[in-house]
Amino acid sequence: MKNFEFHNPTKIIFGKDALNKIAIELREYGKSCLLVIGQKSARGSGAYDRVVKVLKEGGINFWTLEGVQSNPLLDKVQEGIEIVRKNRIEMLLALGGGSSMDTAKAISCGVKLNGDVWEVFEGKKEIKEALPVFCIPTLAASGSEMNGFMVITNMEKGLKLAAGSPHLFPKVSFLNPELTFSVPENYTAFGGVDAICHLLEPYFNGPYPKTPVQDEIAEGLIRVIMETTESSMKNPKDYDSRASLMWAATLALNGLTRAGVGDHPFPVHLIEHSLSAIYNIPHGQGLAALLPGWMNWKAEEKDEPQKIAQLGKRCFGIEKGLDDKMAAKETAKSFGLWLNKINCPKCLSEISIPSADHEKIAENALFQARVWGIEDIYNKKTILKILSFCQ
Amino acid sequence: MKNFEFHNPTKIIFGKDALNKIAIELREYGKSCLLVIGQKSARGSGAYDRVVKVLKEGGINFWTLEGVQSNPLLDKVQEGIEIVRKNRIEMLLALGGGSSMDTAKAISCGVKLNGDVWEVFEGKKEIKEALPVFCIPTLAASGSEMNGFMVITNMEKGLKLAAGSPHLFPKVSFLNPELTFSVPENYTAFGGVDAICHLLEPYFNGPYPKTPVQDEIAEGLIRVIMETTESSMKNPKDYDSRASLMWAATLALNGLTRAGVGDHPFPVHLIEHSLSAIYNIPHGQGLAALLPGWMNWKAEEKDEPQKIAQLGKRCFGIEKGLDDKMAAKETAKSFGLWLNKINCPKCLSEISIPSADHEKIAENALFQARVWGIEDIYNKKTILKILSFCQ
Repeated sequence: MKNFEFHNPTKIIFGKDALNKIAIELREYGKSCLLVIGQKSARGSGAYDRVVKVLKEGGINFWTLEGVQSNPLLDKVQEGIEIVRKNRIEMLLALGGGSSMDTAKAISCGVKLNGDVWEVFEGKKEIKEALPVFCIPTLAASGSEMNGFMVITNMEKGLKLAAGSPHLFPKVSFLNPELTFSVPENYTAFGGVDAICHLLEPYFNGPYPKTPVQDEIAEGLIRVIMETTESSMKNPKDYDSRASLMWAATLALNGLTRAGVGDHPFPVHLIEHSLSAIYNIPHGQGLAALLPGWMNWKAEEKDEPQKIAQLGKRCFGIEKGLDDKMAAKETAKSFGLWLNKINCPKCLSEISIPSADHEKIAENALFQARVWGIEDIYNKKTILKILSFCQ
Repeated sequence: MKNFEFHNPTKIIFGKDALNKIAIELREYGKSCLLVIGQKSARGSGAYDRVVKVLKEGGINFWTLEGVQSNPLLDKVQEGIEIVRKNRIEMLLALGGGSSMDTAKAISCGVKLNGDVWEVFEGKKEIKEALPVFCIPTLAASGSEMNGFMVITNMEKGLKLAAGSPHLFPKVSFLNPELTFSVPENYTAFGGVDAICHLLEPYFNGPYPKTPVQDEIAEGLIRVIMETTESSMKNPKDYDSRASLMWAATLALNGLTRAGVGDHPFPVHLIEHSLSAIYNIPHGQGLAALLPGWMNWKAEEKDEPQKIAQLGKRCFGIEKGLDDKMAAKETAKSFGLWLNKINCPKCLSEISIPSADHEKIAENALFQARVWGIEDIYNKKTILKILSFCQ
């Protein structure tokens, strides 16, 4: 196991009555908040009205920032920063998916910065403080409700970049699985794929230090996410399925399975951010199109088939006797079939992205790789090679 | 899944250089600490000298409270409280096993109380504040380094009682697996059994709500603990074994696998505390002598064999086709054999506790059950019944 630091101070309130505790928790930190919501679903599902009622009854003053879209935009962050500054708002409360939560986080630190918050994403400025953030996720996917990361898209520059800070951990997140009952089938699947990808990227961190604790937790969460993604798609109002999917997705990126595996970039996320930025496709859909190809690239090109084989044997019923190379190939194939089963693409051609676009995608991803300081490993040639495996 | 709150603010610094970061972390909270250590091993292993050096170089004033024994005593807690008060010490730093950590925690809250700290354990007083506690565990077992619990023995009253509070979470725990290299074979085994018991008690919380996330994590940790307990006993200086055992034991009682399974007492711990209080045996040894019998009681008497069967099929290679009753029986048997394999007892007679003592043990355990408010479920008759299965 590699040396690590693990510190996750976010408090989770989970269950059917989680929203009832919003006001009591927020009052520990202030009296006013900006409620950040998406385009339609928060109002449509009745979640917005429930939250508003709780805030009013609890004596919390609030303003609403509406219209955050998936692949959330810098413009909306800047709009939020202005509202917060103008009204001297003390806290952020996000209601929605990763987009609303990440927008709230970007506002929370942007308010405290001199200059443009985008500089944080380009690695030019450090986050030294932030307003308290609270989250009410309505989608099991990003894990943003229990981590210090955010991803924002700058349309003008055509870039979707991630940034993180210990200051961005939500103080409290309120998880009511019932809020995910209305998530449509396709987004339920995209969310499951996103959570699995959060687990796989650290898991496939070759040359693989011995990390049986992290492996067991990641493999267990993957099995649960696969099962409950399917059962949630079939029975959208099955509380137990939605609850396990939601908690598994939260744990999938709360630091637990990353701690001890050593430094690891998120190359699939890196490349997917470029797909989202260029084609404006849902994040989970882009990840699905990349994952099996990335596994094959890992096993064949990088010659690191061991953990892919282990995953297959423990999560996909791949025959225990197979050698690593063969088992890894079978794993990528099985995973692709599962993606198709939940109506997700297993390669780029299935979402009509042609080989001719690889150059453009690689250029975009390279910019991000530079910001992350990993362009020595993920240079243009490597990214193009991975894309060829994903075609 | 049941509703839950999860909040674990302890920061973990894990690895070979963890101790180098002690001073920098402590300085965030104060300038003076009481260093709480055990009877011999901290000095014998050189750990004490390393910590003293770091404290001196880091400009932290310190006093040492020495001689904490396993099944740590109230007297030592009171001695520590006096030293802290007299010298206006600001923090507690525990170096040792659960005993040192729990003693430090008891001092940290005892200092802030008017009156006797024992009243906290008897449920007569509430913990409202505590000095900051930091831990350097030297044994993979109690999980005290990442939770808000403590267990203290009152010799005068012949009672070993537990108490907990959110104020008792250590601020930072420094985990260097090398500090466990010198743990002898028997205590390595006892520690592994303790950690497994922390996982099993919430896992066997009949009538078993659907908790696949918690199940997978608990089962995965149990597999790792079994494997690394054995490999650490064989190769005491194998870093990877010690590291995985240590991290698994920490996660086994940090709240993660308990969250969502519903209210659950710790009946095996309850009865074991009486064994420790009466016979002064190591905690893990007492747990081992109770666990297989408790499983059989659960399966037969309580008619809740399902999860015991699941455990057996997922962790002990019990044949998948067996019905639950039969599989549960086989699981208890296999677990007993594994306990013997690591030189632990699988029943009370193997540590020379006769049936004639059940009455005395049950009386003692009953007092604790009253303090925990669970004497309606664990009344004397039930405790006697469990003991009969454990004989």
